[in-house]
This record gives sequence, structure tokens and C-alpha cells, in this order.
Amino acid sequence: MHDIYQHIEDHIDEHIETLFRLVSQPSVSAQRVGFDKAPGLVKEIFESVGLETEIVPVPNDGLPSVYGVAGGERDDRTLLFYTHYDVQPTDPIELWESDPFKPERRGDRLYGRGMSDDKGNIIARIAAIRAFNEVRGGLPCRLKFFAEGEEESGSINLPDLVAQRGQDFAADACIWEGGGRNASNDPFMYLGLKGVLTVELSISRLSVDAHSSLATVLPSAAWRLLDALKTVKGDDDRVLIDGFYDDITPLSESEEAAISALPDETEELRSIYGVGEFVNEVEGESLRRKLYLTPTANIAGLTSGYQGEGFKTVLPAAASAKLDFRLVPEMRPGDIFEKLRRHLDRRGFSDIEMTMIGGVNPYRTAMDAPWVRLVAETAEEIYGRKPVMTPNMAGTGPMYDFGHDIGMPIATSGIDHPAHNIHAPNENITVEDFLLGAKQAALIIQRFAERGVE
Amino acid sequence: MHDIYQHIEDHIDEHIETLFRLVSQPSVSAQRVGFDKAPGLVKEIFESVGLETEIVPVPNDGLPSVYGVAGGERDDRTLLFYTHYDVQPTDPIELWESDPFKPERRGDRLYGRGMSDDKGNIIARIAAIRAFNEVRGGLPCRLKFFAEGEEESGSINLPDLVAQRGQDFAADACIWEGGGRNASNDPFMYLGLKGVLTVELSISRLSVDAHSSLATVLPSAAWRLLDALKTVKGDDDRVLIDGFYDDITPLSESEEAAISALPDETEELRSIYGVGEFVNEVEGESLRRKLYLTPTANIAGLTSGYQGEGFKTVLPAAASAKLDFRLVPEMRPGDIFEKLRRHLDRRGFSDIEMTMIGGVNPYRTAMDAPWVRLVAETAEEIYGRKPVMTPNMAGTGPMYDFGHDIGMPIATSGIDHPAHNIHAPNENITVEDFLLGAKQAALIIQRFAERGVE
Repeated sequence: MHDIYQHIEDHIDEHIETLFRLVSQPSVSAQRVGFDKAPGLVKEIFESVGLETEIVPVPNDGLPSVYGVAGGERDDRTLLFYTHYDVQPTDPIELWESDPFKPERRGDRLYGRGMSDDKGNIIARIAAIRAFNEVRGGLPCRLKFFAEGEEESGSINLPDLVAQRGQDFAADACIWEGGGRNASNDPFMYLGLKGVLTVELSISRLSVDAHSSLATVLPSAAWRLLDALKTVKGDDDRVLIDGFYDDITPLSESEEAAISALPDETEELRSIYGVGEFVNEVEGESLRRKLYLTPTANIAGLTSGYQGEGFKTVLPAAASAKLDFRLVPEMRPGDIFEKLRRHLDRRGFSDIEMTMIGGVNPYRTAMDAPWVRLVAETAEEIYGRKPVMTPNMAGTGPMYDFGHDIGMPIATSGIDHPAHNIHAPNENITVEDFLLGAKQAALIIQRFAERGVE
Repeated sequence: MHDIYQHIEDHIDEHIETLFRLVSQPSVSAQRVGFDKAPGLVKEIFESVGLETEIVPVPNDGLPSVYGVAGGERDDRTLLFYTHYDVQPTDPIELWESDPFKPERRGDRLYGRGMSDDKGNIIARIAAIRAFNEVRGGLPCRLKFFAEGEEESGSINLPDLVAQRGQDFAADACIWEGGGRNASNDPFMYLGLKGVLTVELSISRLSVDAHSSLATVLPSAAWRLLDALKTVKGDDDRVLIDGFYDDITPLSESEEAAISALPDETEELRSIYGVGEFVNEVEGESLRRKLYLTPTANIAGLTSGYQGEGFKTVLPAAASAKLDFRLVPEMRPGDIFEKLRRHLDRRGFSDIEMTMIGGVNPYRTAMDAPWVRLVAETAEEIYGRKPVMTPNMAGTGPMYDFGHDIGMPIATSGIDHPAHNIHAPNENITVEDFLLGAKQAALIIQRFAERGVE
């Protein structure tokens, strides 16, 4: 593989130039900014390395995906790269040291919105494909490259797209976004993501706000909402919705071992969030187990009455709460929504209205899958250390749609590092991150072509 | 008294003109709007009926009061009129059918902000004084006239002013603002007001908001606040703060009888607020007893995290609630604040921060006081019906400072009616309301001069 690695290194300035072009083009899905040009630019970049490329319309007026495909020597083996070309908003803009859409190199670091998440991953993989084309005259296997345009907005239309077009994107195996290195510079892989149910609870008990002197006799929406919410979670942080935990599947031995072997994040979290004591006093391994393996019932928002300076003596007519439930395999957002409804009804809270805002299924690829082993070996070869693996991240993404609905094992590799400030001001990568990520992408392509996933 | 009443009627157009001048001058204390000119105009009106008048600076940079005094035939008997010249904000302005500060007569009704509360009461009393001056050559007793500038903002500086200057405003008896007629056109008097404690509870558990995927392990300010709030009130609406009810004084027999005799407000409240069932299913007399005689623990505001459209998966760093406690004699806001602090500390919630926003003491004049009898007789004489009396209103005002601290019995008379839309768009009075209120003010002055309060 030395010839391929050498080509990637020799052309690093050109790769950075392409990456800067892509970062210069805004593509903020939450604000639908830049999508007149961004899909076309991604298509142009895909086509520059010989991918037959299509801008894919997304159902429900969604922002388009870009999809490319190229044949290879082993045309019976198909690998899929999942990425996304949309980015997070730039707020708080005043904390950026350079314009988020005017990429800038300062020392060894490259700054700009999307530089790491996920445009850097796109271009690192493009660099690998180009190396195969120019050094070996083509790819060693068939390759599909999917770049979503709504990942940072919750991939809300992806299940519908997959229902329509999923088989077009089918492959034998998939490399997701979001691998790379952890804070100790160990290569880091995750094999799954939690799901989520987002829901709004609201109640209105008066036709208009009343003067608070009437609080003796007029019913209070705020107290009522509190009463309902208090039935949802116990003092031990356990969710009290009937049947909430029923569909959770136990971990395999190798997954249990992987969780045990993960580095301790206790002090890092403590320092970032200024926390004295964690929920249920977890720390070390108990913290990791809770973080990665348990579902949540979180209050993301709470609102009622007067919230400005000083005081207004009002009895608010209405109150509402936004809740999100992170879900682990095999919980389902629709099922949890129904269980919450039944839970509230049984306790006399049928007056609480519920609106489902969104839902994503959780997903894990089995840790002992051949594909996971193959990708792990490439990580060890590139980074010189065995990868740290987690059965799933604490966060959420549309992995289920590809892994379960289309049907393929999923692992990760990439350019990521905790110092990249993803979703935050001054997002960045180092040139080294990029080179390592590109080389691992190339090695994965090669090994997959040689061995497949059996 | 016919000569006096005739003078008031004969000069009604001039009184309305003066009232319109006063209503035209904005004086919104919450926004501190109009106070460059409003106190001067009140002083000019006071002086026009021979009151020796002073614009009274109020401690803590408060908005000034206006105070006038005039001698009379019985100079050993002094009557105080309490009013306020500040008004409520005009929001929601779009619901006004005419400019709130461009008074307008439509049929028998006069519209404008403050037309009823409390500028109409000021000018009705001025009309009575003028009648004595012009018909009888002067007042039959000594008279003090106090017009506050911050009543609609909770009279927060009045206790300090009374501590400084209270004896200047001392009298043998006081007529408060806010009497008049009820929905059945019975004359209506109240002899007291509830007090209030307004307080903000807040808690911060993280140095910054976190992604909600960390809700498994990072502590939640919103859930913590809910836990604390839930200890404050029981399912039966009883406040659970230790010792909360300790200082409540029982009603006298005459007060009990007065509460029983009050008209039923159940259906009126039901229709205004669209309520199916009241708190604890009260109605009729049980509703009145709860409304007038019990304290409250009301959530006036509740805030945490994301409250906009859609969803943001955030674990909020902080949460807060604004609570108001209406207090009945002899509860004290400072005492309840301390009891709430101890209550939370004892239950392990010393991490909840508390800020006292404001406090007003409750106050009642005894129902069998000679002054109450005198004023009730004038009401029956003017309106032709016995007045409906309540020991106290459900609302709050600075009656304690005058009644207890300065020391005088307090009763009410005025121009009020539930159709006046006070604090709301299209505030108004009828010409009849004004005439009745002015005549009763004159009769009170006369009877007080004759009989005093012994």
C-alpha cells in the first residue's frame, strides 16, 4: 500500500485545496442555507474521481443527498461510504477566530465549519479513491459514496428516502462517518448509535391567563404539568413508564468487554461541565455503562407563564415541556410514545396533550462481525495501536436505516478527534488527522476487495 | 346634601374634561413613562380645589407620590383619601378600540387607560371637594389626599416612604381606592387586601448546556427544580411548607357572615376562564371561602432549556421558577420566605437558590369598626341598597402600610364596576358610575365631619 499512501501524501496540498473549496460553500441544513450550490459542488468533486454521480431528491421537500458509484476490479464486492455534506449552524459566531466559511490554515490546523464534521471525512475518502485511480488505474472493488444533506437536522426524511430508493445504496458493508482518534490518540471505532424519541407535552387549563390572586380556585397548568412529569422518572433516575425497559437487548460478551476496556471519561466530563457528582454517583466504568447502555428521559425545555425580569403575578393558562428519550436497541420511538400516552392516561393525566416531534431507531452492528474485525485490523495497521471500540455512541444518527433496513454491517473510520470542536466555534482538523483518515480509507477499500465480509 | 349633589351634577362636563386631561397624560409606572409631567398635573388638579400640595420624593429612586392637605370646619377630624395616579401598561394595544391616552366618550361610556383605575376615582373625589368649596365655602373637616405613583408596580417603595414620612399622612380614618358596585349593581366594599411574597427559585447544575445524549450521567437542573417544587404543594392544594399556615387569624363572626352573604361568583369565573372544575371542586360559598380566605402557592413562571419551535436536544444547565404566595392576615412575606428556605434545606434542596422579588403584608380593618359602619351607611344612602362587604379582596395592595403602620381604619368607596375592564384593553367608566362615586365621597366627608370615628 506504500504507493497509495505516497500518492495521498504527495497530493496533500491539492486535497486541502479541494477541502477548502467544499468548506467555503455553506450548507447549513437547519437554516437551509447554501443548498442552491452545495449539492452541485459535491457532485463535481465525486465526478472528479470517476464516480457516476446523481443529486438525489429527498421526499417531503427534504434537502438532496448526493450519491456516486464506481465499478472496480472485484465488481461483486461493494463497499458503501456514508457521509453528510450539510453542517451545523455557526452560532455563536462571535467566538470564531476566523470566518467559518473562509477556511484558514494556522500552523498545522485547518479551520472552518464542516472541516471535520463531515467535509473533512468526505475529502479524505475522495483522496483515497483518487490514489487508487492514479496509481493502480482504478478501484479494487465496487464503491458507493452517499453524502446526506440533512444529517445535522436529524435526518428526518432519510427513512422515507431509504424506503423509496434504499436498494440503490445497498452494499456488502458500510463505513460510517465519525471514526478517528480519541483524546489519548488511540484509534476509535463505534458500531452503533442510540435512537431518540422527541415529544412535546402540553396542557391548557384556562381560556386566558388569569391574575394570580385567583390561584386559590382556578386550576394551574404549571402545577398539573409538574404532577404529570413527576410520574415519568423516579428519584433513582429510573424511567417509570410502564414497559419502558422491556425491549432492551443484553450486550454480548465481546460488547461487555469492550465497554469495560473503554478509557475513563469521568474527569473530562467533570471538567467540561463543572459537575461535582454525576447522576446516581456513577464514575469510571459505571459512568460508561450508564452513558452508553441506558436510555434517558430528558427535559430539554420547560415553559409556562412569565419568564422575564422581575415578576408578573400571573396564573398561566398553559404549560409545556419538551422531552427527549434516548433509546437503546431494540427500543422503538413509536412504541415509547404509545407507552408514555398509556402511562399518563392510567394515572389520570389524559388532559396532557402529546405531540411526537421526531423519532430515530437505535442500531448496533455486532462486535464480532467479520466486517468489524477487518476494519479494526486496518486501524491497528495505520495507527500502530489496537482500536478502542464501543458498541454504540451516546448520540443518535440514521444508522438503522442503512444497517437494518437496507441490510449491511457498519463500522467507522475517519479523521475525528475530540480537539476538533465539532458543532462548536473554530472547528478544525490537523493535516495529520486528514492523512491518517485518508490512508485508512484506502486500506479498508483494499482489504475489503481482498477479503469481502465473510 | 342636595346642594352638594346638585353642584356635582351641574359641573359634570367640567369634571369629565379634567378627567380626560388626566387620562391623556400617560403615567405607566412599569415602564416609567410620563412621569416628567404626570406628578405636576396631579399637583395642579389638587391645587385647583385648594389643597396645599407637594410632590413627594419616594425613596430608592421611586416614582413620586403627590400629597395634598386642606383644613376644614372640624379641624380636629382628619380624613385621608388613598388613590394612585399611575396606570397599567396598555398591552395588548391592538385590542383597544381607541387610543388609550386619547380619552373618548362613546354613548354613556368614557374610554381610556386609567379612566376607572384610578384616575376616575381621583377626579370623583376632587369633584366632591370642589362642591364643598363652592357651595359651602369650604370642607367640613380636615382632608388629606394621597396619590401614589407606583401602585401598579407593587408599591415596592411605599413601606420605606411610610417609614420616613408616614406621620405626615396620618388621619383618623381612610377611604381606599377600589370600591363601587358589583356585577349585580349592589354597592361593594372591601376592608382588606391579601399580602404577597414573590420569589424566584433557580438552580444551575452544569457550567454550560450539554448535548442531551449526556443526560444519562450529567445532572439535570430541570428535573431537580421539579423535585423541589413538588415538595411545596400537595395534591389537595395544601401548601406543605412547614408552619405555612401558623399565623393565620380566624375570622370574626361578622366577617364569617359577610363571606356567607357575598354573591356567588362561580358561573362568572367559569365563563371568563373556561373552567370545567375549580381547585378542590369548590363552588358557591366554598369557592368564596377559598378565594378570599386562603393563601396560595402559585407558579407564575417556569423556564428551562429550549422553548422555541420544533426541538433542540439539549440538557439545560439551569432552570428557574417564579412563585407567588398570596398571604392572609397575619402571615408575613419575610417569614414565609424564611420558612420556604428552611423547608427546602431540610429536604436536601439547599442547592436551590432563592431570591425574594417583593413582599406586601396582608391587612384587614375589623368589620365591626365604627368607620366601616359609617361608610356602609353612606353607601346605602347613595345607592339605595345595603352594601355587599368582604373582609378582604383576593388581590394585594399597600393597605397595611397605612392601616397598620400609620394606624387608621380603612374602608372603600369609589366608581368601580366589573364592566370597567381595568388592567385590560378598553378601560372605561359610565357617567353614572362617576356621579355616584363623587356623591358618596361627598357624603363620607360630611358624615365623618359630623360623627368622627368613635
